[in-house]
Amino acid sequence: MRLALMQAQSAVLDVASNLEVIDRSAAEASAAGAELLLTPELFPVGYAPRRLRKELAPETLPEIHASLEGLARAHGIALLYSLPEVVDGEWRITATLVDASGTRRVHYAKVHLFGTEEQEVFSPGSAPPVVVDFGGLRLGIAICYDVEFPESARAAALQGAQALLVPTAMSTGYEKVQRRLIPTRALESQLYVAYANHCGSEDGLELAGLSVIADPFGEVVGQAGAEQELLFADVDPSVAVAARSDVPYLDDRRPELYREWNL
Amino acid sequence: MRLALMQAQSAVLDVASNLEVIDRSAAEASAAGAELLLTPELFPVGYAPRRLRKELAPETLPEIHASLEGLARAHGIALLYSLPEVVDGEWRITATLVDASGTRRVHYAKVHLFGTEEQEVFSPGSAPPVVVDFGGLRLGIAICYDVEFPESARAAALQGAQALLVPTAMSTGYEKVQRRLIPTRALESQLYVAYANHCGSEDGLELAGLSVIADPFGEVVGQAGAEQELLFADVDPSVAVAARSDVPYLDDRRPELYREWNL
Repeated sequence: MRLALMQAQSAVLDVASNLEVIDRSAAEASAAGAELLLTPELFPVGYAPRRLRKELAPETLPEIHASLEGLARAHGIALLYSLPEVVDGEWRITATLVDASGTRRVHYAKVHLFGTEEQEVFSPGSAPPVVVDFGGLRLGIAICYDVEFPESARAAALQGAQALLVPTAMSTGYEKVQRRLIPTRALESQLYVAYANHCGSEDGLELAGLSVIADPFGEVVGQAGAEQELLFADVDPSVAVAARSDVPYLDDRRPELYREWNL
Repeated sequence: MRLALMQAQSAVLDVASNLEVIDRSAAEASAAGAELLLTPELFPVGYAPRRLRKELAPETLPEIHASLEGLARAHGIALLYSLPEVVDGEWRITATLVDASGTRRVHYAKVHLFGTEEQEVFSPGSAPPVVVDFGGLRLGIAICYDVEFPESARAAALQGAQALLVPTAMSTGYEKVQRRLIPTRALESQLYVAYANHCGSEDGLELAGLSVIADPFGEVVGQAGAEQELLFADVDPSVAVAARSDVPYLDDRRPELYREWNL
């Protein structure tokens, strides 16, 4: 499956302009033969937790979902996007996969919230990375800080995921995450990891770009620079099979011990 | 604490010559102010599992331990070394820490055995990386393939380890382990990881060198080339404290969920 990954700058709370960015990227990705477009964390509304909590009206969210479903349908490309969700007054950070007909396939709430601002504004999810069959692959979904925990990637791999799609909002100063940690997650849990970041400045936060796709051998098959960019990669389940045959990390785990060790 | 890490070529089953290499390294490390010398996996006997099983007489092992304790005492430096152990006919790969008086402090058996040859010859251990207070630090010990599993480093960190010492025997072709995986282990579990490899050729196996020490921020503070080398690093527990305050990975884990997720 040909995957496209969008790296771009979002304008906080300027939903119309952010949807336009996704619109153009979806058109370009679809024209280039991609079946799925992965977009960054909270991109349609901007990454600014406290401002979102104060200024985003939850009742506008269904319309944003509908617009994104419409973009998927219009361009004939599946879309993985991230939005806040508000249920019983609790705010969560979520990611949703809609297919090329605009039909919702799967939905996930971020488990590991980063820093005091996110933890003040949002409640954490509790389900493991959701895994779904799509485009001849098993795809897992996690969000940003989740993937810095090897446990989340493991939970996806143990459900059979061959690729883990990760919308993120990673600021400058932590480039070792894109450069070393993401390829290591891919290597150790033997799946593709695609990590789509913002770039530029959003409400004073400098986002680092450097979006990356690593294959199940831990090799970087695509890496963006610091500016707006559309990245492509062919995600091939046979590469996961080959990696697992080269070094069988998943088979060589000792889960019965890990439980005794109280991890 | 000043740590020295020995990277060298071992001669399979030529124990006297291998002990000489450790002798010279211990002298040099001690003279340079190091308090502990970390040596590679199975270095005193060479990394050659099937040949060890056939040609190494288990009754010679106590004498090798005694020689190594003597070297620690002679040079006034603690020594972490790795040898096979044979108990009730079962062979294991172990690592032993002796202090500068030659007194055994702690002993560990490798949990994750790599590849068919190791798995044929050796039985796996089942205890988590052992952790001990030494030189003002909490030190954990794991061996080679163990550290490729994030679970082993986590188990050490959860016991309070501020540094994980890893004797290894890593062949060429997997340099991403030294270059990316080891710094990621250090970053995500917020401890120093020191990874001491063989170099050169041993019974036809090409060992890759590139021994590395990464700090709790995931920064590489020492990396060897492909040839014999003695690496030094100052291991400072306050760096682990600073890393855990910068991004509190260990506190932000969700162990109650990981158990539900059946990791």
